[in-house]
Formats: sequence, C-alpha cells, structure tokens
Amino acid sequence: MTDQPRRRGAARTAELLQVTLDLATEVGYAGLNIEAVARRAGVGKHTIYRRWPSMAALLLDALSRVWTTDLDYHDTGDVRADLREQFLRSAPALSQPPIGPVYRAVIAEAQSDAALRETLHERFLATVEQSTFDRIARAQRAGELVADADLRFPAEVLCGTLYYRWLLSTKPIDEEAVNSLVDMFMAAYGAGSRVGSGPA
Amino acid sequence: MTDQPRRRGAARTAELLQVTLDLATEVGYAGLNIEAVARRAGVGKHTIYRRWPSMAALLLDALSRVWTTDLDYHDTGDVRADLREQFLRSAPALSQPPIGPVYRAVIAEAQSDAALRETLHERFLATVEQSTFDRIARAQRAGELVADADLRFPAEVLCGTLYYRWLLSTKPIDEEAVNSLVDMFMAAYGAGSRVGSGPA
Repeated sequence: MTDQPRRRGAARTAELLQVTLDLATEVGYAGLNIEAVARRAGVGKHTIYRRWPSMAALLLDALSRVWTTDLDYHDTGDVRADLREQFLRSAPALSQPPIGPVYRAVIAEAQSDAALRETLHERFLATVEQSTFDRIARAQRAGELVADADLRFPAEVLCGTLYYRWLLSTKPIDEEAVNSLVDMFMAAYGAGSRVGSGPA
Repeated sequence: MTDQPRRRGAARTAELLQVTLDLATEVGYAGLNIEAVARRAGVGKHTIYRRWPSMAALLLDALSRVWTTDLDYHDTGDVRADLREQFLRSAPALSQPPIGPVYRAVIAEAQSDAALRETLHERFLATVEQSTFDRIARAQRAGELVADADLRFPAEVLCGTLYYRWLLSTKPIDEEAVNSLVDMFMAAYGAGSRVGSGPA
C-alpha cells in the first residue's frame, strides 16, 4: 500500500468522527444513529459498520478524538499545583460542547447498557484514572508524597469526586471544590504537613 | 376530619408508591408513565396528578419510601467502623431491586433533565451527604477527628467515590474499596495516626 490511500483513509476517518460529533451535538444521543451519520457524511452505512460495531463505539471514538490532548497532567514538580490546574482545566470541557453534553448522554445511556459501561470505563475513565495515578506516583517517587502508600485507589477518589459533582451535584467544579479535594488528598498522602491541628 | 379518612389517605399513598415501584422494576423507567400507574392501581390519573406533578416526582417518592431507613449511620463511637459498616450495607441496595435498577434509571434520566437532577440531589444525594456529614461531625466533636477541619466537602468525597464506582466503574463496592476509602479519610482527618511512613 502506498501512503496515498492510507492518508485518504485517515482523512475519511477524521471526517466521519467529526460528522458524528456534530450530529450528536445537534440532535443528542437519543436522536443519533448510524444511518444519519452515513447520510450526513455522504458514505454508505457499510463503510461505517466495517469500522465501528455500534453507534456507541463510533461516538466514543469521536469523543476520544477531541479529548485526548487534554488528559495529560503537567509536571512542574509541584503535585498540588498540577492537580489543581488539571482539575480546573477539565471542568469546562465537561460542561461545554463539544464534549460535555455528548459525554453526559453516553454516560446516561451506559446506565442501562452494561457492555457500553464497560467500554466507557475502559476507553475513558480508566485512562483518566491512569493519568492521575501516573502524576501522583511521580510525586511519590519525587518525595512529595509518603513513600509506602498505595495510590491506585486515591487516584480513583480524585476522579470520582469530580464526576460525582458533575453528574449528580447541583454545585459546580469550582476553585473551592478543587482546593478542598486537593487539600484532602495532600492531608492524607503529603510527605509534609496535614489538615487541621491534630496530634499528628 | 376524623382519623378514618386520614388513615385511608395514607394507605392509598403507600399503595400508589408500591405500585409505582413494582411497575418501574417490571418495565424500567423508559416504559413508565402515570397512566400505567393509575391503571395498575385502579385509580384515575387525576388522583395521581393531584399529588405528584410528574412521573419522576412520583418515582422519587416511591424510592424514598423503601430507602429512608437505610440512611442512618450507626454510632458505636468508632467512626472508622461505622463508616465501613454503612458503606458496605449501602452497596447491595444500590445493585439490587427494588432500589438499584430504578435509581440508576432515574440518575440516567436526570442527565438530560436539569430540573430532575436538582430534585434528585435535593431529595436523595443531599440527604446522603448530610447523614454522612452528621456522623463525621459527631466523631469530630468526640475527638476522633482533627478539630478544625471543615468536613462538608469530605462528606461529599466519601459519597461521591461510592457513586462513581457504582455508576462508572467496572469494579464493585467491596471491602477492599471501602477500606481504602475509609483509610484515606482517616489519614486526612483522623486525630491519630496517618497513612504511610511520612514525617508526620
């Protein structure tokens, strides 16, 4: 295969993902189907079915495409600052198009579809947890966090708290919430000081 | 008014809420509507509309009825044990009928209905957060937790982590998760020892 068809294939994939996201934003998840995406993109349904087994799989790929660049934590050597920055930077993505409403709709759909929930976790949430874990594990190796704590679950707590607030709370993911969350994390695992005036 | 009609009113309310929950369990949230509830209960639609403005409001009341008794934390004087017990006791309720599937469906529906999300938070999640806060605030007054920490947000973190695992993770709310969560909380706010071997 020469480079030409490969490039055309990549361009077509990118176009299909963009059309999917546009359509999802316009009509919502409930109104979305592969026929409508095919019609809008000017391709046959089978072109899509050859690549994606379901509407959900196609939509998750479309979300991934606009999202992945946002997932990497900075590493300035100050884990508290880097967590804060990342959480505050993620918050608008969750509440605004193109990601926010579509992602929320997929999460809703996943509540009655265990296979989609698994794919969603594998494709998105596990990635978010992993990148959080990677950042705090680096901080642990750098001596910013206590040496012998297992940080897998704390990474999930950090992500889970933000998702809870986004999906189920009426309060925003704002500076106050992010500061409180990072304070709690550092109080538990920071190698230095802790919250409050207890006899630590 | 004599006691007789008041008792009849309470019995009819209880019956309507039970019918609602039964029907929700059978047909799912998507298949549920006030006409179907009225038909099953043998009452007119207006009997229901007089009391509940929407299907969601009726269903939230039905969920509340089977649920409220489970929400109170024990107070044995050992906050770590009481949190563990409560979290492990809540987990099966979230995964099994009558509460689990119906509650999950309401949460899904709330993702595309901001008013329902607000009602859901006010009626359920705020209550869960509050009862968690009450228990840890008592522990703080008893000297089990550091004196000057604001425990509002930590109560949300405890609840949010469990909801995240229930709604978005593929892992169960098991002893390992609950222990890790309570360990993190106590490491941050316990008046005694902390996680790890840091220079605390």
